[in-house]
Amino acid sequence: MKVAKFGGSSVSNAKQIKKVLKIVNEDPERKIIIVSAPGKRSKDDIKTTDLLIRLYEKAINNIDYQHKKQEIIQRYADIVDELDMDRDILDTIDHTLEHYIHELKDKPSRLYDAIVSCGEDFNAQLIATYNNSQGIPTRYISPKEAGIWVTDLPKQAQILDSSYEQIYKLNDYKEKLIIPGFFGVSKHNFIVTFPRGGSDITGAIIARGVRASLYENFTDVSGIYKANPNIIKDPEIIEEITYREMRELSYAGFSVFHDEALQPLHKDRIPVVIKNTNRPEDKGTYILHDREINSKNVISGISCDKDFTVINIKKYLMNRQVGFTRKVLGVFEDYNISFDHMPSGIDNISIVMRSNQIKNIESRVLNDIQKHCDVDELSIDHDLAILMIVGEGMNRVVGTASKITHALAESNINLKMINQGASEISMMFGIKVEDAEKAVRSTYEFCYHGVCIKE
Amino acid sequence: MKVAKFGGSSVSNAKQIKKVLKIVNEDPERKIIIVSAPGKRSKDDIKTTDLLIRLYEKAINNIDYQHKKQEIIQRYADIVDELDMDRDILDTIDHTLEHYIHELKDKPSRLYDAIVSCGEDFNAQLIATYNNSQGIPTRYISPKEAGIWVTDLPKQAQILDSSYEQIYKLNDYKEKLIIPGFFGVSKHNFIVTFPRGGSDITGAIIARGVRASLYENFTDVSGIYKANPNIIKDPEIIEEITYREMRELSYAGFSVFHDEALQPLHKDRIPVVIKNTNRPEDKGTYILHDREINSKNVISGISCDKDFTVINIKKYLMNRQVGFTRKVLGVFEDYNISFDHMPSGIDNISIVMRSNQIKNIESRVLNDIQKHCDVDELSIDHDLAILMIVGEGMNRVVGTASKITHALAESNINLKMINQGASEISMMFGIKVEDAEKAVRSTYEFCYHGVCIKE
Repeated sequence: MKVAKFGGSSVSNAKQIKKVLKIVNEDPERKIIIVSAPGKRSKDDIKTTDLLIRLYEKAINNIDYQHKKQEIIQRYADIVDELDMDRDILDTIDHTLEHYIHELKDKPSRLYDAIVSCGEDFNAQLIATYNNSQGIPTRYISPKEAGIWVTDLPKQAQILDSSYEQIYKLNDYKEKLIIPGFFGVSKHNFIVTFPRGGSDITGAIIARGVRASLYENFTDVSGIYKANPNIIKDPEIIEEITYREMRELSYAGFSVFHDEALQPLHKDRIPVVIKNTNRPEDKGTYILHDREINSKNVISGISCDKDFTVINIKKYLMNRQVGFTRKVLGVFEDYNISFDHMPSGIDNISIVMRSNQIKNIESRVLNDIQKHCDVDELSIDHDLAILMIVGEGMNRVVGTASKITHALAESNINLKMINQGASEISMMFGIKVEDAEKAVRSTYEFCYHGVCIKE
Repeated sequence: MKVAKFGGSSVSNAKQIKKVLKIVNEDPERKIIIVSAPGKRSKDDIKTTDLLIRLYEKAINNIDYQHKKQEIIQRYADIVDELDMDRDILDTIDHTLEHYIHELKDKPSRLYDAIVSCGEDFNAQLIATYNNSQGIPTRYISPKEAGIWVTDLPKQAQILDSSYEQIYKLNDYKEKLIIPGFFGVSKHNFIVTFPRGGSDITGAIIARGVRASLYENFTDVSGIYKANPNIIKDPEIIEEITYREMRELSYAGFSVFHDEALQPLHKDRIPVVIKNTNRPEDKGTYILHDREINSKNVISGISCDKDFTVINIKKYLMNRQVGFTRKVLGVFEDYNISFDHMPSGIDNISIVMRSNQIKNIESRVLNDIQKHCDVDELSIDHDLAILMIVGEGMNRVVGTASKITHALAESNINLKMINQGASEISMMFGIKVEDAEKAVRSTYEFCYHGVCIKE
């Protein structure tokens, strides 16, 4: 049995929804469908979720919100009319929004989660009703009914492990099931949303819960590119990639598939395929536990992300001092900073983190390190981009490092940092922010076309 | 004013001692001389210090030690006779050894330190007496008289910061001063030795204390080689090297100059020169705070050491968990293990340490990590050698990494680990133990002769 998730652009209007249902209905294995809120219909359109956020802001600030509410209802009305459906559902939408606003006005963060969950929820109800009316037995299932029980902190839902037993029972239904993505219900009976982009997470949770044979993630691209298409013109699409590779690439800027959504799938080794709603015949990209390596697919992808900061610490005879590093990390823990890399020399240590982790508290953190750790030198560098070259098996091929560093040297890119080894499937390079695009271009051309870009 | 230290082979017999005193006496700036115990006179000879250790073992086990004691006295007798000196000093030697054995028999670790300190101490007394008899005002100064006050833990002496004030007063003497290396005196009035090879440490402490203009470290080679002469035939000698470079090279196997001896010098930027007692006209290797970089001396040296172990930890979403790394390091701290490197990926961390740090406690450490840190995968690899390429300014030269990895790839060496960046002056490569010599040869040929060794 397959679980299929459709992103916002796949369910933005009647035409798209018909495409989705054609895909769903032509394969009896596609039993459970997760839908997003209606996304943009054109480049200048506004996503339904963003309209809902504005509705929330008006309601919470006691500004007249009727016009905004009508705008939202109109999004669904357009779909209802084009699908030639009964308009009753629009009343339900209206009543539900008013109900939340009046019930939760004194609990702003609860109201926020309830309101923004409506984008997915209304869409799921609408699509289920329509498909059923077309003669295909279809049923809307709310997250609560499905058993998506989550932690209680607003906007930060995490699935409770105990949920999976109830979710497994979805296997008992004979109909096709349509479930809204993006949120669950807490034990205190509040709607709590997943971090944004969280419909991927709902799909992954359901796929794991029902032990799906495949989790199909439909979006508006035919798979995952080997490098950022804003930097590389028409990059190739990855055929197969492992969970681990996907995560390393997501980390440094790949955003096709939501990072945390891999976690539930990883555990039960449920394969994922990223497919294109508009070109369902395209093979897409499979995300798997293992993949076969051949000479052409050693390197899966190349990504680069810019917003990193590095703190450099020098301390003479550092490696002799048991506990020194732990003292330094204690300061980071005090400020709740999670760091990403920690290359170290004999007398030096560098701590690499996302710049947002240390924004605004930088001077306090540096002061505390200075005060508690008795360091010899302390410096901070904000001009750091991280280039990740990711590929299963690259650690087994002699000369990989040589080839990649060669390509970067030919493009005159200085390497502030190289980190290879802890992860067997990636090499990390710290480079100047201004070199980021050039680095992606030069390594892409070299890894996939064997061409050096000389500067 | 210069402080000169002479190693064991430089003071092993009368001929060598005459060479040393010629060097000392021809430069009025050479005021303070630190001497080692008599070293080997030929390849199969035994160092005096090793004879003293055997004397200690016999005495502590109530085995008749008279023969061993006579063997030691004979070492000095040979020197005394060849120098045509009065034999009185041999009685002093005999009495001192008997005195220590009887006074300290119930304090084995104190006895050990006292006995082994005799090698240097007797030699200093002998050399001072002889030089004085040659008409050059010379005085033996004991470490206590010099003010070398140290911590009280046997075999692990560390200088007390308060000592330097007293040491500075050595400037007041008009004579040449001969001080034994290798030990100091604790506030409880016990002799405590520095870690072995510790005459270098005494020299460094005195050089710092008297604010020497230069610390001359005389040994039996004409400086520091750019790579291990057991691997590279007749390697070039380094002309100038910085403290930092020296330390990174010492770390991975260079043993010419004792690692910890750099610490006191580093602080006051006192330059060191490594010279050859047998070829004092050779320029030697200068160890300095800064050096000028040109195209030929970017890379100072190449070293490789074999006895490393790495523990690899995988944990999904590791980088999101504030405090995870600190928890892991807590286990290492519990077992008092100091580690050397810690390359990390997004979901992985590797902890590299000297194998002796984890010997015998390996399974307990792994168990504790498993128990306290909830890791996904845990493995250990004993087959790790560390290759260090060290050079000030290499981080400023684009393509250094490319060239070195190229040389290694041409020799078919797989890189388990690359760590560059935390230290600006070195690149570290983790390789298989069996590749260690090949790696040194291939990078040496490439860095200094531009030649690739193809396998």
